[in-house]
Parts: sequence; structure tokens; C-alpha cells
Amino acid sequence: MSGNTIGTLFTLTSFGESHGAAIGGVIDGCPPGLALTAADIQIELDRRKPGTSRHVTQRKESDTVEILSGVFEGKTTGAPIGLLIRNEDQRSQDYGNIADTFRPGHADYTYWKKYGIRDYRGGGRSSARETAVRVAGGAIAKKWLSERYGVTIHGYMSQMGEIDIPFQSLDFVNQNPFFSPNAEIVPELESYLDKIRAERDSVGARISVIAQGVPVGWGEPVYDRLDAEIAYAMMSINAVKGVEVGAGFASVAQRGSVHSDEMTPQGFASNHAGGILGGISSGQDITVNIALKPTSSIPQGRQSIDKQGNAVTMQTNGRHDPCVGVRATPIAEAMLALVLMDHALRHRAQCADVINT
Amino acid sequence: MSGNTIGTLFTLTSFGESHGAAIGGVIDGCPPGLALTAADIQIELDRRKPGTSRHVTQRKESDTVEILSGVFEGKTTGAPIGLLIRNEDQRSQDYGNIADTFRPGHADYTYWKKYGIRDYRGGGRSSARETAVRVAGGAIAKKWLSERYGVTIHGYMSQMGEIDIPFQSLDFVNQNPFFSPNAEIVPELESYLDKIRAERDSVGARISVIAQGVPVGWGEPVYDRLDAEIAYAMMSINAVKGVEVGAGFASVAQRGSVHSDEMTPQGFASNHAGGILGGISSGQDITVNIALKPTSSIPQGRQSIDKQGNAVTMQTNGRHDPCVGVRATPIAEAMLALVLMDHALRHRAQCADVINT
Amino acid sequence: MSGNTIGTLFTLTSFGESHGAAIGGVIDGCPPGLALTAADIQIELDRRKPGTSRHVTQRKESDTVEILSGVFEGKTTGAPIGLLIRNEDQRSQDYGNIADTFRPGHADYTYWKKYGIRDYRGGGRSSARETAVRVAGGAIAKKWLSERYGVTIHGYMSQMGEIDIPFQSLDFVNQNPFFSPNAEIVPELESYLDKIRAERDSVGARISVIAQGVPVGWGEPVYDRLDAEIAYAMMSINAVKGVEVGAGFASVAQRGSVHSDEMTPQGFASNHAGGILGGISSGQDITVNIALKPTSSIPQGRQSIDKQGNAVTMQTNGRHDPCVGVRATPIAEAMLALVLMDHALRHRAQCADVINT
Amino acid sequence: MSGNTIGTLFTLTSFGESHGAAIGGVIDGCPPGLALTAADIQIELDRRKPGTSRHVTQRKESDTVEILSGVFEGKTTGAPIGLLIRNEDQRSQDYGNIADTFRPGHADYTYWKKYGIRDYRGGGRSSARETAVRVAGGAIAKKWLSERYGVTIHGYMSQMGEIDIPFQSLDFVNQNPFFSPNAEIVPELESYLDKIRAERDSVGARISVIAQGVPVGWGEPVYDRLDAEIAYAMMSINAVKGVEVGAGFASVAQRGSVHSDEMTPQGFASNHAGGILGGISSGQDITVNIALKPTSSIPQGRQSIDKQGNAVTMQTNGRHDPCVGVRATPIAEAMLALVLMDHALRHRAQCADVINT
Repeated sequence: MSGNTIGTLFTLTSFGESHGAAIGGVIDGCPPGLALTAADIQIELDRRKPGTSRHVTQRKESDTVEILSGVFEGKTTGAPIGLLIRNEDQRSQDYGNIADTFRPGHADYTYWKKYGIRDYRGGGRSSARETAVRVAGGAIAKKWLSERYGVTIHGYMSQMGEIDIPFQSLDFVNQNPFFSPNAEIVPELESYLDKIRAERDSVGARISVIAQGVPVGWGEPVYDRLDAEIAYAMMSINAVKGVEVGAGFASVAQRGSVHSDEMTPQGFASNHAGGILGGISSGQDITVNIALKPTSSIPQGRQSIDKQGNAVTMQTNGRHDPCVGVRATPIAEAMLALVLMDHALRHRAQCADVINT
Repeated sequence: MSGNTIGTLFTLTSFGESHGAAIGGVIDGCPPGLALTAADIQIELDRRKPGTSRHVTQRKESDTVEILSGVFEGKTTGAPIGLLIRNEDQRSQDYGNIADTFRPGHADYTYWKKYGIRDYRGGGRSSARETAVRVAGGAIAKKWLSERYGVTIHGYMSQMGEIDIPFQSLDFVNQNPFFSPNAEIVPELESYLDKIRAERDSVGARISVIAQGVPVGWGEPVYDRLDAEIAYAMMSINAVKGVEVGAGFASVAQRGSVHSDEMTPQGFASNHAGGILGGISSGQDITVNIALKPTSSIPQGRQSIDKQGNAVTMQTNGRHDPCVGVRATPIAEAMLALVLMDHALRHRAQCADVINT
Repeated sequence: MSGNTIGTLFTLTSFGESHGAAIGGVIDGCPPGLALTAADIQIELDRRKPGTSRHVTQRKESDTVEILSGVFEGKTTGAPIGLLIRNEDQRSQDYGNIADTFRPGHADYTYWKKYGIRDYRGGGRSSARETAVRVAGGAIAKKWLSERYGVTIHGYMSQMGEIDIPFQSLDFVNQNPFFSPNAEIVPELESYLDKIRAERDSVGARISVIAQGVPVGWGEPVYDRLDAEIAYAMMSINAVKGVEVGAGFASVAQRGSVHSDEMTPQGFASNHAGGILGGISSGQDITVNIALKPTSSIPQGRQSIDKQGNAVTMQTNGRHDPCVGVRATPIAEAMLALVLMDHALRHRAQCADVINT
Repeated sequence: MSGNTIGTLFTLTSFGESHGAAIGGVIDGCPPGLALTAADIQIELDRRKPGTSRHVTQRKESDTVEILSGVFEGKTTGAPIGLLIRNEDQRSQDYGNIADTFRPGHADYTYWKKYGIRDYRGGGRSSARETAVRVAGGAIAKKWLSERYGVTIHGYMSQMGEIDIPFQSLDFVNQNPFFSPNAEIVPELESYLDKIRAERDSVGARISVIAQGVPVGWGEPVYDRLDAEIAYAMMSINAVKGVEVGAGFASVAQRGSVHSDEMTPQGFASNHAGGILGGISSGQDITVNIALKPTSSIPQGRQSIDKQGNAVTMQTNGRHDPCVGVRATPIAEAMLALVLMDHALRHRAQCADVINT
């Protein structure tokens, strides 16, 4: 398939363009009996939606989700769950001036070469708007993981541009526009991003995600390792350029005597592995970091070419996030939830008899 | 499936344990007409095989591959290609002492909890020995990519432990046991690794891989992005804890005005993107970095537990690589080749008419 | 996945229940550049929709389709095509009396045992209403196959109950409510079905489908044979109990000297194979027959049980087709189109170089 | 993938040609803990192997299977099971005379057009020899289904050519070369087939398969229905031209009041459905019929063409079964076992919580 489906047993198939009629998706494989309402999904969508602070795009979208199927009398039935989010603010005139040129750092050029088509309306399918579908699907996975296995998933921003954000507490994460786990640093983040925006520039971010309560045994050993699937899911998020599990790139300079987590009758003595050994969850917290590049669309003149290959100067005005990482936390959480739920089901299939003993 | 198959159209299905009768695999989806002999595969296997220097495990394996099917009169037929590598050196007595205990940092514990089975013979399925199958499959992909599209794939070690390895030239890579692209630094790497081994410890490594000549247009836009599939493939390699494409984690602190590669009539002005935009190849070099953790099996006493949960002290003697990254370069190349060939075929399927115009 | 997706490269993912908010689907993998409007799909939906004659259910559904994505300026873009059909006539009160009992011959019982849920609203997901999504997806496949390869697909009723329908011409098929390819027999079919309905009973049908112009070479040799995938697709239609390709069950009593189609410089001398040899299209017409069982929902008392296992007498009133086969012709065409398009793309992927020489 | 893998969670990937070095396969997804030896598989292979009576091909193959991986200390480990069967009797000189011509009714022509390659050695990949791999894989599925769920699967010949074989008992099936469930008719079958062979001709057969003890709830509702997957699996067997479930084509002429199986507190009152309702097993016996065409390779002159399109007369001598259906019973059983085991696992994944209550 053309890559618009994620998952093996719990699958999300996504559709929709930034400036088309709607975006949406189909969840297939959700077990029956999960209590589910649109409100359960909306709460996650609202964390991602645009226009919630001056630090994100001012596009106006309520991102209201409709559950079209798969739920009966308040519970999932085992049938596919159709999800629909109508686009409301489709000011495609903002983009008309770029119909024949390519924005540096954007997918305009590669889409055009691949498909022979230039959908210039805000990036079309390549827009980060598609991530709303992921957040919607992830909300279902999160709820099931929590209710069935007590798994919780939390993300936070751990770096913005040059500013490292020391971790303090998950409690503060949802109370500031950056998903910062550190209260004191928020004013600094605000003034930093105001400055970036004033300079008509953008900046990257690092997001961390943690899953707690994952039972030992989820994941497959060779190709579909839990960490490999997490890497796939995270790298599929727009603007992500790197993924780490546990100690990540820091493990290169570590000694084995330091990195390898010792075990005691009371549990593991450390967690450099990030909760995954040999591709399978160990029962420790699963810890993931991702790197997001700075937003490509910036309101300053940049060298580019047009369809005919002529040199042009491009300036993207539109309504763009100065740091795409600011809204990425709910997306990263959703992707981790999708992967974990898929592997929970896969594990039940093959190892049901082991589980039951 | 249980995750022993990689790919959508060009697939490799792998089987075999470290100390079982054999390892092997099945390639499905190889186009007909590719000239192929066992020697084409053997040359890559010989780059990965153990015992080639004092810096790697001294296990004796010729890693001789037999092509069982799919080739007729020297050419691929379009039928599945069966590959078989018999295990020769199965000194499982080396491992008998660990049958009831778990090695820190290893998959022993998670496999046992998942499957209810403890295959103590050198890690069984979790052994890095399985990567020989990947190298064999990757050799076929490499050959096809080269002959059909002129794509070449090269890897090298860019860091070992604390030692950064400045890139000089690909020419030198196959002429030293570390796959170092820098000749002068090799003596330092040798003495460093000798010291690590003398300290009965191990160390990590960073491997870089580059694909040159990839046409614009390979990859899918949303979930099965080329970079997402590369992240999956790389993270599925034993001991890998991180994956970057292009600027990777460095892009967090970059400005958009720096990161986004400008375009000119002569081509891109830089390559922070690592050759992939919106999940689709841009025609630039595809550049990937991976982080490998230090070998978990080290010959010094470490805290662990046994099956009954009692505290034990474990010391792994056996014959282990002091730095698993030393042999990882051919594996990383193979994984990139597998992903690229799969996406070459996927692109032909959907966009054949665009390609032809 | 839970089986709501069909296809490998050209996929249709379906959602929706008979009496929910909507039914719909997502097409993934459609090549870019196909001219497509809602009207192209509507024309096929109108052939299947209820209420078009007295011989089918009188439920009122306009079956109006909305294309939500994947089409820009009148052409497919290569992005997934979201399709939505709102349900209009949801008289679920008709079904309230069956909430605790199981209709003989229906999926009520198996769904309840599988999912622990009883969605009594007209069969919920098991309703034949889902086939509208197939017809919508098939319309896209049909159009692409026709424009790109000149392939045409036609179905017709070849038997209803005890009445065999001698083939005369495809021209007449769309001009009678039975999709009969024989004009003279239509009055007999009408009076026959009136009689069945008057007897409060139902009857089965055999539908034949033919694909013309399929190039030689589509299909895979071993498991995913073209005929195997056709069998899968056809047997997945509600009420289908048998599938034949070419001579089908009649080939059991044939001699090899009769069955095996001889070849001449002018082409094949016969077509007992039904256009498929070794799982691959031969260039001849592909011919398929399917058997549909009589409608299970009939307005006469029948023995059944309730959720507690007590004996009950069930009588299904509602608004049901007395012969589900009457509306099955467009569905069978759609399924054949979906399979052929998928294999056209698969063939291009693996054998593009052969095709081009 | 190119269609050499069957299954979603319990998968068999097959490789090998009739006259290559070996045939074999990889089973992925087998749960851990199943007691398994080569003898468990060999017993099924011996039922299918050639040369066991004068009524089948006299090719000499011991069909000795080697388990290469996935079993440790007599039990499956959850790792992939590699299976290898060396080819022993590769008299490819028998086939040399057909290297440039196409055998009527055979896949020679379609393979050549698809792949641009003519592997004339006994059909290469299209040979029925590949079905040994299916039987090997099916043996594992059969054993697991029996031990874990008490499911048993039995096949028998129900028609050979014009001769209908009235069912008497499963007990007699393995005691005659035809897998006839009727002892008295065996002499008639023998003399009939002797006559066919003397006439240098071949004939078709119908095989019936029954699965007993399948729990209610296996299967998926829409596309991956249990009957759809059975139809796929059966139609993928060489020479199969038709598949029926339950009443099959006879249901066309049935009334709903007859076909729909009534339910009582003691169970279903009949089984026209063949054990599947709405794509999901009902707990009744699953009953399937398949039609096999007469062998295409017959030792009499037939019209054909060569690669250049010239008219030729072909006569296939070699060593062929006069009725491919004679050895098809174990194959059909294996295919049913593969499908059922796959769906058993799929059901556990999604509905584990329902099952457990």
C-alpha cells in the first residue's frame, strides 16, 4: 500500500489534505468493549490544535472530530472506527503565489517529481495538519492501554533551539504552551521564540516521550522490534530527523560496564536501555527522544527554483509555527500509543498461552 | 506476522539461531533478469564474518552461502530466492553456565518472559549472527540498485567510544578492520580497543551510511516515509539505540534559515535534509547515522538474577566482540539497500506513468 | 489487521454500519493523474442502490458519495482517496424486536460470540450495505483499468433460483432490474420472484463476471495467484458460497485433452482456463462465476434461540431483498476490478523492466 | 510481496523449484511451547509424496524434511521455523525438449510473458512440487490446532472424473491411494484411472475437506472472512478451478426457508452454511469442496506454439499424475489448517478479553 496505514493488528489508515474538504482516518482492530466517545478523542485534539497561543500558527480550526462507525451504545464493537475532521479555514489564496515554485526544505519538489502533480494548497498531503488524524487515533490507543493494562504515556519538550529544558515534573506539562516539564524556564522559552519570530526565522526542538507501566514481553525480536517500530513511527512525523531510545547517541561513548543495566531481585538498577531489550519491552519505562528540525516555511527571501528550473526568490508568508516542535508533544505521544497498542495485540496473538500461565 | 520479514514488495524473511543448524532467509520480489551468483553475496558476507581480526569475536564461521532457488542459468527468475548458511562453530558448552541466569543488557530476560522459553545457546534468535542473513539479502539489493539505477551505498565508522573519526575518504574503508574512512586514526583505534579489551570492558560506536545516485521520488509521504522505513530498518539492527537522517539531532539547535536547503538551477545548495524531503528522496545523497551501544556481554562480574529471581553475579566469557560496531558497517549498508530497493519497486508500481513521461 | 482492508498496493479500507451515521472507505495507492469526479463513482452506486424496483429492498438511500481527499483539480494526486456515504434511512425501530434473539442464517450469533456485542441495527457491520463502499472503490479501479489498459469488466445474472439464464448479450444487462443478459427471460424472472416474495421466502442466484482486455502477465504464481485473489474477493461478498474460474466445477469431469486450451499462432483455441494459467493472466477473457445463497431474512416464523439459549420463533419483517443476488452484479464487478488493479500495480513493480522491453 | 507468503499472523513463506536444489519454507508466528519433531511433519509429507502407487507420478522423492530453526529441546520457541526439503530426482533432461515451446494448459506461457524467463525444468516454480512445502507447514498448524483447541481436519476425494464417490467413513481414507472415503468404490476408481492413463489422457477430481471442533468466533467480518481466506487458500493450489463452502453452488436453487440453518437450544438444526456465518465460524463443522482440473501434461500430441509464435505439436512425456486430484487431499487439508491457525491467532489478538470472560 502507499504508506497511509500504520500498524499490523491495530491499524490507522489516514486520508486528507491541509486545504481539502476534510481529514480523517479509519482505526481497524480495536478490541470490542472499550468505552469511547468523541470527547475522549477531542481532549487530545485540543492539545494539538492551532491557534491556542501566540507561539503557534494562527490558522483557525476547531478540529472537531466525528466518530462515524465502530461505536454502539458508547462502546467499541470491534468494527472499524471511522473518524472525520472537517477543514474549516481553507485560505488557499495564501498559497496561490507558490503554485509554480518550490519552498526550500519542503516536500513541494519531491511530490511534484514523484507524482507529476503540484498541490500547492498549504502542502496538501504533506502538511502537518495530517497529524491531527494521528492524535485522534492515538487517543483511542491511549485509552485502551490505560484501561486494559494501566499503561500511561507522557511527552514533553526537552530542548528548544539552543535551550536545554531540565526535567522537573510531568505535572506542569499541560499548563504551558510548550509542553515544558519545567515551570521556571517558560518565560525564557517565550522570549526566545518571540525573538526568533521577530527575526522571521524558525528553530528546532527535541521532544521526549515516556511510557510507564508497559508489561514485559511486548515487541518482536528481529525486524519488527518494539524500538524499530517506535523509530519508524516517530520518524514518520513531519520534521523529525532523529530518534533515540534510552541512552541513544550517548551510548556510543559509554562502556558496557556502565550501559548494560544490572538486574537485582528488586528490579533493574538503571535504565540505559530505555525499557527495551532485544526489541522486547523489559517492564521498565520506555524512553524516547526525537529531534524536530526548524520549520521550513519562514517569511524571509530564500533561493529556490520554479517548475521550469529557473532561479527564484521565495518568501513564505502564510501562517506557520515558528517552531513545529511546540505542537509536537501530543503527536509523539500518539505515535508511541499506536505502536504499543499494536504490539500488545500482537503479543496476545502469539503468546496467549504463555501469558495465561 | 511475528516480525521476521522486512519489506513490502522486496521482502526478506529470516530464520535461524546462533547455535542451531543453520541461518538463512527468503528474498521475495526480486525482479527477473538480475545476474546473480553465490559469489556476489559471499563478498559482502566476508566483510561481516567473525574472526577476521583480533578486534572481533574469534568464533570460526566461514559463513558460506548457498542459493537454493530463484536463480536459473545465472539470472534471477522472479521466483523467491532461498538462502542458506550452515552454522559450523556451535560451541554451545560455552553458554551452558548461563542457562538459568540472565545476562545484563541482553534479551535473555525479555525472551524468557515473552515466550516462556530460555534458549541459552549464545542468545539463540537474539544473536547478532542473524545479521548475516541481512547482509546476504542486502547484497542482492545492492547489486540490483547499482545495475538498474546506478545507486551506490557505502558505510563507515564515524566514532568509536570517545574517539571521533574525521571523514577522509571512502577509499580506505575496506582496508582496515574498523571500516574507518580515515587511515591515520587506525593505530589509535587499535590501541584504544586493545585497552578496552584488556579492561574486560566494551564500547559503543557510531556508523554512518550514505546512498549516492538515488533518483528523486522514492518513498511514501505519510507513514511509510523513506526516512521512517530507514529508521525502522536501522533500529532493528542489534545494539542500535539511535538513528539520524541528515543533520539529525543537530537540527534542533539550527535556525530554519540555515537548515532548509536552498535550491538553485544547479541543484541544492546544501544537504541538511539528508536527501529526503517529506519522506521522499530528493536526488541528493541520503545520509544516515546510527548509534550502537557497547556490547552487553563482557567478561567481568555483574549483578543479575536467575529464573527464580535470586541475586547472582554473572560473568560472560564466551567469544564476544568488544565493540559490536566494528562489524556493523556492512549490516547498516545492507539495511539501507533493502529499504531503497523496496521503495524503488513501490515507486514503479504507483508512479510508472509519471516515470515514463 | 482486522480484515477491513482489501488489496496489497491498491487498497480499499472500509468502515461503517448499516444503521450508523455513515459508511465509507479509503482508497490508497491510486496512481496520480486519473481524471475522477464523484459522478464517476455515483453511476456505479446507482446500479447497486436499493429501491430501484419492486424486486429489491424498499429502503430509501440515495447513496450519495462525497470525495473527501486525493483529488485536486479533477485528477487523482496519488494521495489516499477518502469516500463518504451518509446513511439516510435508519429505521432501526424495525430491528428492535430482534435485539436479544438471533436470526437463522445470519451473522448475529457469530458476531455476538466473537465480540461480546450485539449490534442489532440491521446487521450492523454484517449488513450488505457495506458493499456500497466496494462498489465505490471498484468504480475507481474500473475507470483506471479502462483508461490505462483498455480493460473492461462486465457482470450479469446467469441463474436465479432454478431458472438458468441463457447468455445472449451484455448490451441488455443494464436495462432490466436483474442484470439479465437475456431480454426474453425477464418476465419469467419477474413472475418467479413475485411468487417467491408472495410465499414469504427467498432464493439464491448465480452471477457471472468477465474481464476483457487484461494483458498477459498479471498475477503471482504461488499463493497470491490472480485466481486465488479473485476467489478471496468474491467469497468476501455477503451471501457468496462458491466461486469458479473458467470451467470451474465442470472441469472435474473433463478430460485433459478437452480442458487444456490449445494454442495456435492466432491465439488460444478455447478458454476452459478462464483466462488464468498458473495464477497469471493469459490475455484471454477472465471468466468467473459466483453462487449467492438465498436471503436469510425472510418474513416467516423460524426456529431460533435468544441470548440465554432459549428456543424462540423468529420472523424477520424489515425491508429485505427476496434475492440478494439481484443487486450483486455491480458488487461482483467491483471486486474483480479491485483485484485486477491491485495486480496491475504489483506487476509493474516487479516486472517493469520486462514490460518495457 | 510477490505472493510467496500466506497468512497474516501465522505465515508460511515458500521457496524452491521443481528441479532446483531444494524446496522449503519459513513458518513465522508459531506460538512457543508446541512439541514438534521432523517426524510430525514427515508423516504428512509421506501422504503427499510421489511414487506411492501406480496412479501417481513415478518420480522418486523421499521428501525428507529438515527443521533448521525455531525448535529447541523438542519444542517450538516462538522463533521462525525454517524447513528444508532437498530435491533428489532432478531428471531435467526429460524436459529439455520443451525449452522453446509452451505446454497447453500450463503456466509456461504466462511465466515467460511475465518474467521474460523460461525455466523449462519441470515447470520450475509452477510445479505442484511446491505443495510439499504447504503440507509441511500445514502439519505444524494441524498439530497446534489439535493440541490447543481440539480441532481436527480431514479431507477425502468425493468425485473423480465422472465418478461420484458416496461418503461412507473417514476411517478408510488413508488406506487407499485415492483418499476415497468409500471402500467398495476403490476398484472402480482404479480401473477407471488405468483406462484414462492407457488413453494417454487425464481427468479432474473433487476433494472435500472438513474441520471439526472449530470454536465459534474465528474469522473476520468483511474482507478477511474465514470463508474468503479459505477460498483464497484453496484456489491457490495448483489446478484448482472452483471452491465451495457449505451448500456452495447448490444454494443458488435453494429457498431461504431451506438454506438458512435454524437454531435450537441443542444447536443448529442443519449445516447448509458450512460452519461459517458472516465470515465467522459458527461452531459447526466447516465444510469445503474444491474442483481440480485434469492434469495439463498428457502424453498425446497437442497444438501449441513456440517462443517465436510458430505452430508446433507438443507431447509431454515425463512422469505425470494422470489425475492431480489423487494427491491433492493432504494439500487441501494443509491449506485449511494454515487458514484456521492464522485466524485462531487473529481472534486471540483482538478478542482476548471476550474469550476470557
